[in-house]
Amino acid sequence: MTDAVVVGAGLSGSLASVYLARRGFRVRVLERREDPRTPGAREAGRSINLGLSQRGIVALREIGLLDALKPATVPMRGRVVHSPDGTLRFQPYGTEEDQILHSVLRHDLNVALIDEAEKQGVEFHWGHKVTAVDRSNPSVTTASPQGTVEHAAHLVVGADGAFSAVRTQLGRGSRTTLHQEFLEWGYKELLIPVGDDGRPRTELAALHVWPGDDGLIVAHPNVDGSLTATVFLPFEGRDGFAGLDTPARVEEFFARRFPDTPTLIPDVVEQFLAHPPASLVTIRTEPWHVTTEHGRGVVLLGDAAHAVYPFFGQGMNSAFEDCSVLDRCLSAHPDDLPKALAAFERARRPHTDVLAELSKRNFVELRDKLRSPLFLARKKADLVLHRMFPRSWVPLYTLIAHTTVPYGEALARSRRQDRLLGGLTAALTGAALAGLAHRSRGRRGRRQVS
Amino acid sequence: MTDAVVVGAGLSGSLASVYLARRGFRVRVLERREDPRTPGAREAGRSINLGLSQRGIVALREIGLLDALKPATVPMRGRVVHSPDGTLRFQPYGTEEDQILHSVLRHDLNVALIDEAEKQGVEFHWGHKVTAVDRSNPSVTTASPQGTVEHAAHLVVGADGAFSAVRTQLGRGSRTTLHQEFLEWGYKELLIPVGDDGRPRTELAALHVWPGDDGLIVAHPNVDGSLTATVFLPFEGRDGFAGLDTPARVEEFFARRFPDTPTLIPDVVEQFLAHPPASLVTIRTEPWHVTTEHGRGVVLLGDAAHAVYPFFGQGMNSAFEDCSVLDRCLSAHPDDLPKALAAFERARRPHTDVLAELSKRNFVELRDKLRSPLFLARKKADLVLHRMFPRSWVPLYTLIAHTTVPYGEALARSRRQDRLLGGLTAALTGAALAGLAHRSRGRRGRRQVS
Repeated sequence: MTDAVVVGAGLSGSLASVYLARRGFRVRVLERREDPRTPGAREAGRSINLGLSQRGIVALREIGLLDALKPATVPMRGRVVHSPDGTLRFQPYGTEEDQILHSVLRHDLNVALIDEAEKQGVEFHWGHKVTAVDRSNPSVTTASPQGTVEHAAHLVVGADGAFSAVRTQLGRGSRTTLHQEFLEWGYKELLIPVGDDGRPRTELAALHVWPGDDGLIVAHPNVDGSLTATVFLPFEGRDGFAGLDTPARVEEFFARRFPDTPTLIPDVVEQFLAHPPASLVTIRTEPWHVTTEHGRGVVLLGDAAHAVYPFFGQGMNSAFEDCSVLDRCLSAHPDDLPKALAAFERARRPHTDVLAELSKRNFVELRDKLRSPLFLARKKADLVLHRMFPRSWVPLYTLIAHTTVPYGEALARSRRQDRLLGGLTAALTGAALAGLAHRSRGRRGRRQVS
Repeated sequence: MTDAVVVGAGLSGSLASVYLARRGFRVRVLERREDPRTPGAREAGRSINLGLSQRGIVALREIGLLDALKPATVPMRGRVVHSPDGTLRFQPYGTEEDQILHSVLRHDLNVALIDEAEKQGVEFHWGHKVTAVDRSNPSVTTASPQGTVEHAAHLVVGADGAFSAVRTQLGRGSRTTLHQEFLEWGYKELLIPVGDDGRPRTELAALHVWPGDDGLIVAHPNVDGSLTATVFLPFEGRDGFAGLDTPARVEEFFARRFPDTPTLIPDVVEQFLAHPPASLVTIRTEPWHVTTEHGRGVVLLGDAAHAVYPFFGQGMNSAFEDCSVLDRCLSAHPDDLPKALAAFERARRPHTDVLAELSKRNFVELRDKLRSPLFLARKKADLVLHRMFPRSWVPLYTLIAHTTVPYGEALARSRRQDRLLGGLTAALTGAALAGLAHRSRGRRGRRQVS
């Protein structure tokens, strides 16, 4: 039997362990934290949720977990954009019934994946911190209260997040490319509780966005009728996290910048001041895998391989797609792990590099452009064309969120469409001007005869 | 008295310690390796040398060490380019007597700097490996055979090279940008010994270059008449380090690609196979400094802050310029370390970012363009214009190597000149074509009458 060690029992690690167990590997998962299923492990008030889109859905369907998870999700049919003057505007995600996102709690999804992995025979070791990785004869050394253990394996999967210990250990003394950049904005999460009448305080079947170039809120719905709002602000400055350090300042800020939030979050001040802000990182690295001449190897996936900003909602979805693609590569090369891992990196890295760029761009879109009439007009034209030619004209957001077209191909296709749309706009503007000139000449003509 | 701890006793660390001691700091230098002055510390056959240019010269003059070092250097007045057919071509570096580089052994320069630092009262701790850096109350913890020591200081300087332990420790849990990229080419150093007659085997007062897009050699002269050649090759491939793994292959490769090297390096095969190749890294990071509210701080300089490829010969020179700029910032803010360090990073980082890009570009230039007639014609035009307008027209290489114009300004100025040169070329080509057309018409005219 082939041994696999997965480092990290978060979303990508636990999903990877399920895929590997189903493919016949004997799988151990090593996790620094304690079992999230132990009572009290779920941090009160930090019910972080995520938007599951097509790539994540496909992976969950592949391992047969999608239907069981459905009741734990809330469908999001589009964005509700909150303006500073209090008006709301709904933008649907797509034109098809299935072009929707599903909001799910990270904790619920993680527990479901761990339960499923255990059903498949995966062994979880909690409270194990990685202290070394041997890449020449793959093994992972961990320290835990029980002592130091060396876990040898044919395949080691580093699924231990943006600050991956496996990646750091792998990079020692080797020519590893690493690009690590932090956004100058951070975030805090606030709960929009259900109303006093027990009903949601705002539309539940949508993602809510408060755009702004000096601050941005995004809120996902929860099954209990509450929503989790993520407030993105600059770290520095008077209206940044550094400046918003007293109850009076926080209160004034939300009333001024996001006037409907005090109603939605009655204890916004207390919640805001309860935790320090978290940071946002982009990680690109190369290579993702190393192999030995004996056919063993180490591979990174998920945030460990490519952490992205959350503004395209693709962090988890791309990590899940990684697991699915890795599984296909293992299936294509069943007796050749080095070939499978090389095929995985070749198939995947160019596309997650594109995703990193798109996620940066979408920060600008959410921040600045959702309020721009020109941008909105163009977005509308994009959707109208999609409705007219549902197969041949697909907006970038739709390609990313509602299909499994590889990210790089999605971008290339959207660029072609942008050029066409530019041409079309020019042609239509030209025609309109020509029409205007014609009518104008006609009027002048009439005036002359009158 | 203000305490400074410098991590790293290499070129930049030992020079920084001299500047700090001269400015009145009590300075300790912590170095992982042993004292390079102990007999046997200098690796036999690895007599690595460097090209000292204007920025480095200015710094050594500022600390009063330049004249004492002169006898240990060899002037290089230009490049000797070796073609595959064996012909040599000399390209002078500049038009002025002082537009030359000085080749110096890293070891000799380092020992001179350490000796000078000790004269200024600097204390060196050898065999001390950094295990932790406390940035909130600056201190450096080191492990040595004598045990663990914590060195507190007002100012900690991380001058510990491209894989800086200070930088790694500083980045823990903070929003540090890090870009680390390795070139797909590596290098090995080979000694071109003096001839059997005791005289140099080739021109000594020059840098020698064997350009090529599949392999590249650069050689610096030594005072004893030998030269140190650095062979740059791709890591992979048949003609890369991976493929050149037997005496027969190495012999065939040098005879074919660099036909004059077997005469210059009689034991080229043995030397080539004696050591593994070294790698080349570019590091960009941000921030370079952190300070405390009590006016203390940690700062990076040299390779720890900005490692660059060696193809512009500016690694050491830019590190020395860092020390000089930091000294000026400390002088401008004598009682405000945080202000001084902020001024240093602000003054310096944009320019070393430019240097990183220029050093990448010069790899392409050395590799491909030194053989291109168009490039050489343009380079010649550049030098002719420099001779005609010595103050207002200065080629980029001259600005980088022979002046202390900040790197970013040098690039901006060279871009302006490139645009002018492009316009000039077009105008002259136009004039030439017009002249040609005129003559051609004239000839046609004559033919008609004849």
